[in-house]
Amino acid sequence: MGIIRKTNIKTNKAGRIIDSENLYQGILKGDVSMLARSITLIESSLPADKDKASEIIEKCLPHSGKSFRIGITGVPGVGKSTFIESFGTLLTDMGKRIAVLAIDPTSQKGGGSILGDKTRMEELSRNENAFIRPSAAGNSLGGVTRKTKEAIILCEAAGYDVIIIETVGVGQSEIAVNGMVDFFLLLMLAGAGDELQGIKRGIMEMADALIINKADGDNLIKAKVAKAEYSSALHLFPPNDNQWVSPVLLCSAIEGTGINDIWEMLNGFHEKMTITGFITKNRKEQNLSWMNKALQEELFVRLIQKKDFQDHIEKLKNEVALNKISPFKAIEQIINEII
Amino acid sequence: MGIIRKTNIKTNKAGRIIDSENLYQGILKGDVSMLARSITLIESSLPADKDKASEIIEKCLPHSGKSFRIGITGVPGVGKSTFIESFGTLLTDMGKRIAVLAIDPTSQKGGGSILGDKTRMEELSRNENAFIRPSAAGNSLGGVTRKTKEAIILCEAAGYDVIIIETVGVGQSEIAVNGMVDFFLLLMLAGAGDELQGIKRGIMEMADALIINKADGDNLIKAKVAKAEYSSALHLFPPNDNQWVSPVLLCSAIEGTGINDIWEMLNGFHEKMTITGFITKNRKEQNLSWMNKALQEELFVRLIQKKDFQDHIEKLKNEVALNKISPFKAIEQIINEII
Repeated sequence: MGIIRKTNIKTNKAGRIIDSENLYQGILKGDVSMLARSITLIESSLPADKDKASEIIEKCLPHSGKSFRIGITGVPGVGKSTFIESFGTLLTDMGKRIAVLAIDPTSQKGGGSILGDKTRMEELSRNENAFIRPSAAGNSLGGVTRKTKEAIILCEAAGYDVIIIETVGVGQSEIAVNGMVDFFLLLMLAGAGDELQGIKRGIMEMADALIINKADGDNLIKAKVAKAEYSSALHLFPPNDNQWVSPVLLCSAIEGTGINDIWEMLNGFHEKMTITGFITKNRKEQNLSWMNKALQEELFVRLIQKKDFQDHIEKLKNEVALNKISPFKAIEQIINEII
Repeated sequence: MGIIRKTNIKTNKAGRIIDSENLYQGILKGDVSMLARSITLIESSLPADKDKASEIIEKCLPHSGKSFRIGITGVPGVGKSTFIESFGTLLTDMGKRIAVLAIDPTSQKGGGSILGDKTRMEELSRNENAFIRPSAAGNSLGGVTRKTKEAIILCEAAGYDVIIIETVGVGQSEIAVNGMVDFFLLLMLAGAGDELQGIKRGIMEMADALIINKADGDNLIKAKVAKAEYSSALHLFPPNDNQWVSPVLLCSAIEGTGINDIWEMLNGFHEKMTITGFITKNRKEQNLSWMNKALQEELFVRLIQKKDFQDHIEKLKNEVALNKISPFKAIEQIINEII
């Protein structure tokens, strides 16, 4: 908890109070500590912090949008941290600034995961052109999504060129992340038919590219076979709206091979889709679709809390599960009582 | 419109008023005309009709749940009608009763589509053990979904053994239908790489089985190749929660070949998943998940209508699209005004 408290301090070293304008100015200058403090405000549940965070976001909004937003997912053990470390270092070596936002809805709130993450990506975390920040685990997926979307805006205002959103590939967070990135990467391992062990159905079809990691040593032949298989399979998928056919690439994050090709592919996508206008169009749609969903969710949650309806709804859900009442009638009842 | 009006008549031939109890009793006896009238009430937007429909649904609820609910989708031209005609006739020949509910969110409300559909499945529509009913097109997908879910309950109370929900494979309705059936069939054609032309991304991964239709004559070899390709591809997909690996089957609906094998496969699934309890568990989850979503949607729509907020929301959406205001701030504004 120490780390969280530390970033919550409302004064700077000289003892001056840091208001939203100071934080905003700091972010614009690329001040990592100001950026980190602002994200902590986003994650705070205190109303005063929320208001401050909201002010910062609105100020940063006109400076946002210039990064390439990349989602990366894969089950634990696939080598995501090593991949991001290797990939991130390549980009910073090219003079780019990179931000990594990690979402793990199952992790506990606290300082542990931050330290854990810094250790995970040791080299990158010492790199002054890289910013690594695990997302504080909220109570709801909706909350995590919103906080991540807000953190993206701040990172963009702080001038990061590439923003990576990392998830673990086992839950619903991938669908949410797919709704806030320009490109969605799925990391896999080549194995005896169990390449997708642990990956939820539906995620593979969302992927804009499959990366088969650990394509090295004895694994290389297996990885090449897997690449051929997945390439044919992906050609059988219906095309995306942007007509992009998802490629399959090999890499060894630990040996650093293949990482350059992956960046070439990503950069090619970004250049092409910027020209066609797909990225802008896609982001608008993502925002509006997110807004529609979040509005309904938030309105519902607030009304339920206000009217103390949770127990009543749980009771009706049980009756629906037991076929005692139709879900239609249950909804009718709840709504008539709320409105 | 003549047909719609006719089924809306509130008296029977003897001039007696038909109340919800009469309709319910008629449905339980398997009276097709009473079933059709009740579904018309479900589709009606008149408050009195809605109340009546709601009464009938609650009465029928304890008698529902015994059918095998199958979703069938595929783009126009794939031969869905011919397939359903052939498949349905096989089932009625086996002594089963079959109901077909067709969803086409793009069609206009009116008598035309009903006649059109009867013509489409000529043989089946004359079969006394088959009930064919296109879904009245509502204004919203949510509305169509709800009406279809309600129609399923009535058809089950009327004793239909197999209920087919047919969609066109080009929109979001498949995701909704996947959330109300036990099994989801995707009909395709074998072609030169364009088997999925027109099929939305995400639908293939939802399919519990792929059926390659028109596997006859000159097409047979192409169909066999496609079967092999899709079989390997589907093995690369992550498994379903029920561990079912989606098979690929060939058929020629027009020649009647392969239809029997498809039924064997479906029946095998149904028997197995009844024993494992998956069907019951899945339906409970479908009901609760639908309820959560519908509750939020409905609550939102009603509040917006009540407070006449549509214009205000549209204005804010435009500002979000232009990056003038963040979607977070926009949501906050709307909710604070509503509550």
